[in-house]
Amino acid sequence: MIHAIAVTQFSKMLSNLVAILGEAEKYAAEKKFDTGILLQSRLSPDQFSLMQQIRTACDTAKLGAARLAGREKDVPVHADTEQTLAEIKARIDSTIAYLASFKPDAFTGAAERRITQPRWAGKSLSGQEFLIQHVIPNFYFHVTTAYAILRHNGVGVGKRNYLGDMPYREAAAA
Amino acid sequence: MIHAIAVTQFSKMLSNLVAILGEAEKYAAEKKFDTGILLQSRLSPDQFSLMQQIRTACDTAKLGAARLAGREKDVPVHADTEQTLAEIKARIDSTIAYLASFKPDAFTGAAERRITQPRWAGKSLSGQEFLIQHVIPNFYFHVTTAYAILRHNGVGVGKRNYLGDMPYREAAAA
Repeated sequence: MIHAIAVTQFSKMLSNLVAILGEAEKYAAEKKFDTGILLQSRLSPDQFSLMQQIRTACDTAKLGAARLAGREKDVPVHADTEQTLAEIKARIDSTIAYLASFKPDAFTGAAERRITQPRWAGKSLSGQEFLIQHVIPNFYFHVTTAYAILRHNGVGVGKRNYLGDMPYREAAAA
Repeated sequence: MIHAIAVTQFSKMLSNLVAILGEAEKYAAEKKFDTGILLQSRLSPDQFSLMQQIRTACDTAKLGAARLAGREKDVPVHADTEQTLAEIKARIDSTIAYLASFKPDAFTGAAERRITQPRWAGKSLSGQEFLIQHVIPNFYFHVTTAYAILRHNGVGVGKRNYLGDMPYREAAAA
């Protein structure tokens, strides 16, 4: 289930975010303002801007998969220098491509692996704790806040854009 | 892992939300305004208010666990009539108490169970699809948006309030 969440589902959410940003781009074009204004928008002066929310969503996915798989050493570096919508979309695409490099067996034993990161000063979580209590809530926090900033600024997206398509089957539950 | 996510972690997030609402209450008292104003706040005129975000977060957790465990028939009903902070906090507490009624073995076979709900018009998802593509993203959507409404209105909470305590151990990863 780790791969299904941290790779497949996170990639889906990031693709949904690219599509949502496409709607933001159309909205800015209609209203004749620069998309950079949206990227610098925030809900509170001491919260991240849309740009930084997207960067952090990407990094949460990238570092989450890398740490769970014990692959921190080959994680691609992103310099946080994006300025434009095209640049931040490229970063999302790069994150999705990186996630695709993880096959399900990359996470064998990941739930039990001890995970740490620099800011935890030597402390650690189990892989399952890290995934469930850190990676998932952080990832959705930043994706949802990115969406909320756009909604607050009038971009006409809805829950379906956020969730994306569902793999419904016609046969109902018993 | 279903129980760890849909019961243990969701209960933790709902408890964090109660604590965040406590900070909102203090802020309203300091600034001398009624907490009902916060509960009716929203980020966009066509998005749910804080009150409705909290109700929906609770229902996503309640119905998620019930459907995954095949227990839709005994799910407690909440009438969506809360008006005050005390009433919505009681609803959260009631949801946490209901989640506590699910033991890990309640989800045996849940990943493969076909899940449906009235608005899907006879279509279904597997339990795993339902959890990963519907319940988790919806739950975090509503909790994060509730948090975002409060941050936007100046309530002094941060990511630590959202995430809650982490079960760190002193021993680092190898």
